[in-house]
Amino acid sequence: MNKDQLYSFQEAMIYSHKLSQISKALWKSVEKDWQNWIKDYGLNINEHHILWIAHHLEGASISDIAKFGVMHVSTAFNFSKKLEEQGYLTFSKKEDDKRNTYICLTPKGEELLLQTLNTYDPSKFGVFSASMPIKELFGRFPEFPELMSIIRNLYGDDFMSIFNKLEEKIEASLDDQPASPVIAAEEIASSHS
Amino acid sequence: MNKDQLYSFQEAMIYSHKLSQISKALWKSVEKDWQNWIKDYGLNINEHHILWIAHHLEGASISDIAKFGVMHVSTAFNFSKKLEEQGYLTFSKKEDDKRNTYICLTPKGEELLLQTLNTYDPSKFGVFSASMPIKELFGRFPEFPELMSIIRNLYGDDFMSIFNKLEEKIEASLDDQPASPVIAAEEIASSHS
Repeated sequence: MNKDQLYSFQEAMIYSHKLSQISKALWKSVEKDWQNWIKDYGLNINEHHILWIAHHLEGASISDIAKFGVMHVSTAFNFSKKLEEQGYLTFSKKEDDKRNTYICLTPKGEELLLQTLNTYDPSKFGVFSASMPIKELFGRFPEFPELMSIIRNLYGDDFMSIFNKLEEKIEASLDDQPASPVIAAEEIASSHS
Repeated sequence: MNKDQLYSFQEAMIYSHKLSQISKALWKSVEKDWQNWIKDYGLNINEHHILWIAHHLEGASISDIAKFGVMHVSTAFNFSKKLEEQGYLTFSKKEDDKRNTYICLTPKGEELLLQTLNTYDPSKFGVFSASMPIKELFGRFPEFPELMSIIRNLYGDDFMSIFNKLEEKIEASLDDQPASPVIAAEEIASSHS
């Protein structure tokens, strides 16, 4: 195969189908567990994602929400409006940017998000429990460099910044607490399917 | 950290959130491109997935469709019924298994699936184009061993068999054709975003 012939149709078909099947299987699992996690708070995944992003970015425009939440702009707007009506966030202008509207969580919105985070149980996420054998084998969670490269090519550099921002924010917020709890192996083992 | 302490809450939170974000981003991209691909055939993704699975398994039960299509049993049943009403498949019993109902494509269903496959253009799938730099760099498409292990832990060994079955079937059906077309680098380059 010379340099101009990068792949056969057959290879393309097999790879593309495999990746579609993988993506669907992963997301359907995450979606189910995410819904179960937040259902008692009267939120759907999009609403929870909006609260999460607005909290982590410390004020987010509708296009930030749409981009980092991987949702349509109209979805981002409609659910943000609904959250505003319930008093969880406000739409406002920034001091240094009068053109765009920013979403900021109200104390009630911050409180709700915090409540959901306090009931977060990693072992109830199938993809998390299913990653534990890798963590046990290699001593760390997988980092998926190839997938991250694919997502970077798809969504751009800016999209990737959410991963660092979330990490920093989670580290900062947990450092404020007296001690980070460490979960024992038995607890995980009992939750393995 | 001793053996009983496998992860901190902070690590769990960061990893779990990262994986959720990755899963959503990948699937939303695949979903959009898949919809675009088949929209002219009056099919939605679930219906196309059902035709595909029934074709590849050469007869599939509703629970096969639900499992390999990662959809609820009721979704699998309702969309299969709709496809039956349109004459694309039939429900029938197998000679060696009179208890279960199997779905088989009709010639009209096979024809429709074939039409969609003939208009499949890998470069129109964002995740595919976004994988090309990896293919160029390493000479092969990524295989995602860690993800495959996570999916195996989540869905079981049986679920993984779909990957081999699809691969065999695609190879067999393309081998029937006179020559597998090879796509040139320029075509891909022009479709890169």
